[in-house]
Amino acid sequence: MTWNTTNLDELPVYEKLAKLARNPFDLTAPGAISPERIKTYKSSGSGFDLLFSTQRIDDAVINGLQQLADQSGALDQFHAMKGGAVMNRIDGHESEERQVLHTACRDIFNETPCHVVATGQAMQELEKLKAFLAGLDKGQLVNEQGEAYTDYVNIGIGGSDLGPRAIYFALAAYSLKNRRVHFISNVDPDDAAAVLRKLDLSRTLVGVVSKSGSTLETLTNEEIVRAAFVGAGLNPAKHFIAITGQSSPMDNPEKYLQSFYMYDYIGGRYSATSMVGAVMLGFGLGYDAFIEVLRGANDMDMAAEERDIRRNPALLLALLGIWNHNFLGHETVAVLPYSQALLRFPAHLQQCDMESNGKSVTRNGEKVSGFTGPIVWGEPGTNGQHAFYQLLHQGTTVVPTEFIGFRQSQLGSDLLLKGTTSQEKLVANLLAQSLALATGRKDDNPNRFFGGNRPSSILLSDKLTPYTMGGLLALYEAKIVFQGFIWNINSFDQEGVQLGKVLANRFLEHLNILRQAGGKDSEQYPESWAMLEAAGIFKEE
Amino acid sequence: MTWNTTNLDELPVYEKLAKLARNPFDLTAPGAISPERIKTYKSSGSGFDLLFSTQRIDDAVINGLQQLADQSGALDQFHAMKGGAVMNRIDGHESEERQVLHTACRDIFNETPCHVVATGQAMQELEKLKAFLAGLDKGQLVNEQGEAYTDYVNIGIGGSDLGPRAIYFALAAYSLKNRRVHFISNVDPDDAAAVLRKLDLSRTLVGVVSKSGSTLETLTNEEIVRAAFVGAGLNPAKHFIAITGQSSPMDNPEKYLQSFYMYDYIGGRYSATSMVGAVMLGFGLGYDAFIEVLRGANDMDMAAEERDIRRNPALLLALLGIWNHNFLGHETVAVLPYSQALLRFPAHLQQCDMESNGKSVTRNGEKVSGFTGPIVWGEPGTNGQHAFYQLLHQGTTVVPTEFIGFRQSQLGSDLLLKGTTSQEKLVANLLAQSLALATGRKDDNPNRFFGGNRPSSILLSDKLTPYTMGGLLALYEAKIVFQGFIWNINSFDQEGVQLGKVLANRFLEHLNILRQAGGKDSEQYPESWAMLEAAGIFKEE
Repeated sequence: MTWNTTNLDELPVYEKLAKLARNPFDLTAPGAISPERIKTYKSSGSGFDLLFSTQRIDDAVINGLQQLADQSGALDQFHAMKGGAVMNRIDGHESEERQVLHTACRDIFNETPCHVVATGQAMQELEKLKAFLAGLDKGQLVNEQGEAYTDYVNIGIGGSDLGPRAIYFALAAYSLKNRRVHFISNVDPDDAAAVLRKLDLSRTLVGVVSKSGSTLETLTNEEIVRAAFVGAGLNPAKHFIAITGQSSPMDNPEKYLQSFYMYDYIGGRYSATSMVGAVMLGFGLGYDAFIEVLRGANDMDMAAEERDIRRNPALLLALLGIWNHNFLGHETVAVLPYSQALLRFPAHLQQCDMESNGKSVTRNGEKVSGFTGPIVWGEPGTNGQHAFYQLLHQGTTVVPTEFIGFRQSQLGSDLLLKGTTSQEKLVANLLAQSLALATGRKDDNPNRFFGGNRPSSILLSDKLTPYTMGGLLALYEAKIVFQGFIWNINSFDQEGVQLGKVLANRFLEHLNILRQAGGKDSEQYPESWAMLEAAGIFKEE
Repeated sequence: MTWNTTNLDELPVYEKLAKLARNPFDLTAPGAISPERIKTYKSSGSGFDLLFSTQRIDDAVINGLQQLADQSGALDQFHAMKGGAVMNRIDGHESEERQVLHTACRDIFNETPCHVVATGQAMQELEKLKAFLAGLDKGQLVNEQGEAYTDYVNIGIGGSDLGPRAIYFALAAYSLKNRRVHFISNVDPDDAAAVLRKLDLSRTLVGVVSKSGSTLETLTNEEIVRAAFVGAGLNPAKHFIAITGQSSPMDNPEKYLQSFYMYDYIGGRYSATSMVGAVMLGFGLGYDAFIEVLRGANDMDMAAEERDIRRNPALLLALLGIWNHNFLGHETVAVLPYSQALLRFPAHLQQCDMESNGKSVTRNGEKVSGFTGPIVWGEPGTNGQHAFYQLLHQGTTVVPTEFIGFRQSQLGSDLLLKGTTSQEKLVANLLAQSLALATGRKDDNPNRFFGGNRPSSILLSDKLTPYTMGGLLALYEAKIVFQGFIWNINSFDQEGVQLGKVLANRFLEHLNILRQAGGKDSEQYPESWAMLEAAGIFKEE
């Protein structure tokens, strides 16, 4: 199977957009953001509305962006990806050569899934999970004393931590009674120690998540936690669950209560809807809630195949990002959820987006000529308004912003104060920030002058539920892969993390030598020995 | 009192540095990062070492940066600030016209403090706090049932939340037994609801933090929490503490158990060592631990007055930031602590740095000609290595990086695995990343090629304790004000947050009208009405 691998700047529409970008729409002109514009600059799909009247675009740019989507073949590639094309590759060079099938995990609601084998494997694991969770619910699966498990520790890092953790925090309002979830990720020993000291291990399950079964941090933390179980007189094999690749070193019934499988066609950062997220979320929120996450994600996966960008918020968000990044030259994008529950969602996106698209080589193995993935960062509003928004409004760097909001709160407990509820105050602030960034304000006092023309979008849904969380996750996954397709890069590998691993192992060998020989005994790699010395890790006599 | 208000590009050394920046030191050249360089490119002060051999600088640049420090009068200004100069001002325009005296809060160890009145006020509040905490410890201050208070809820936003929260998380390993602290900040009603549902209110104290006593989010959350106390049959006046300005609307003994005062010469984002942090940290960690935070901060405040940049890590960090931002053109800076306990420290810095230096007007009221504050972001390592480091190594945007590390763990519980401890693995990864970013690696496979020349610094101390946390906080505060002095901007106001507030109030008025009249009844501000409609907050018939 082949697909479009034309570079962005070689697409016919590129010059047109570059020309339009020389004189972008002025959001500060009187009446520029008209009621008509506000109501019509809107893209809706699968329960989400994307409001984009506060972007520096006009109808000509919108048409250009639609052409960009069409000419890049982004949708065909998305469809090919869902169908099992080997898209994790670099032509002419050694690369991972894998399919990209995270969408198959949630393609379980259709009679004819896009990829029958992968969805079949997903359903098989879901059945295992359903039985496992039913055992917990019915009191068949209990600890040595016959008590129910109340706590679950997720040991994983990167994609085995960030996405699942973001979703758990987002949906903690829907937790099952007497079920708590904790996370250990960092090799910093204080991370595990801080979690362990607040747990009753006898009532705790531990999910260890590593596809290869060989991730340094995860194995190290697993050993620390196993030692704590042994120290408490408990048998880890009765408490530990493996979430790993079939026949990995961790797929071992002697060491684990049960194994749940993940497959090499799902990258870590796209794995939250596989067993990586499923087991932990199933424990904390229940099986049905997790299925709702999948339903929301699947509905968005389908909406993302819509050609018209006014009906495809994921695609439009991708295109607006490219407009701001490649054509208007802004290096970063802030994702600002007006929902405290989404506080770790930006950290998930930092991985999903920056690890996917922080690349310098095209899928043809050539150096890319323009910008690829932006720097993604953000914190929840309104908190951020009292933190870094000063720079967003009056700094010397323009930061395109993606606001995320909901019309209703999760818990529904609210208070009318000065004529409005807290939820209304929250949404009012979101809308106000978008408008303020766009329009700016003239003032004779130069320190109170706002230049405006700072672009933003607003992504809105009714309420943060398992279903909409699934949709939001899938929307951003789709945004990211669309951008990768348009930049003609491989969004599915991560060769850039290898060099650090190699050098870390060299430092660890040095430390091993120091421990065994009591001092430096090699002249190889003088610079890493010097770093250890300069850092005060050892003193050369 | 007057001080240097020359713009950066008008300082004599500017052209020299600009010229040097055209051909910056090549970190990828064979032998460029020599053992000699690694050991000598180091600045040490107050228990912290700053290693900077992996910056794109040579001796000529270092000399230039020392000249930049000297010519800008950064140290004189720092000294003037500590002495009570009215540095929060814009010449010739209406501005806050305030002193900047956060350092006075910790200048309590010297016989002759820099500013006698402010330090006297700080000591008075500390005495009040000491007595208050002793009452808790000795069982004199108890709840209605005679039980000890076990939980404390901090209600505040921005500086009344981020800095104190970051410090509490950083030092949670040193918590007093049976004392837990919780935070409510966001106007999102789910934030308060999620905290409230896990508390036994009868044993909970609530600290409400607002200098003006009028912060929308904080007052709203206070009302929600008060209502919960009343609903539980408890009298809020026995549980609530005010941390506020003297004679603010919150300074009211009928509504609060006690008031602790903050003063207008301390900006919110610099207030963590005032009563804003003190009351909460004193409850959670004890009075003595908080005094250690102050001692560490004060020692760093003194070290920051050292002229020689090789003995002043705060000043050098500021200068390296300006080198990377203004001379090499990098828009962001990543702060990456290799310590899970520092997980919220970058969020504090986002406020402290971006709200201070995200400005476009000089202290003379002119538009600045170059870049001011960068975008600050980051997450703990090694977690980040499995997330966004792909972009740091191979992305199309260069991100200067500030690593933070410690030689020992906090809790000391560690495990030797494959010849090294977890703490050693953590530090080895930190050093390896710095080296990898700098040197890069050649490879015939273009996708495995690392361009290198990505600058970083490493800030190291022995262990994250109350003392070093105070030092780290003060180091970054000093870094930020040094940069502001060199950019010739006012780092102490935040006019950029005003427009959003005005527009948010307009939206809230609209919502109020909708609630009372049941529909839109005004044609004023058609664009904000249109936004409410487009957002689906109401449908016009």
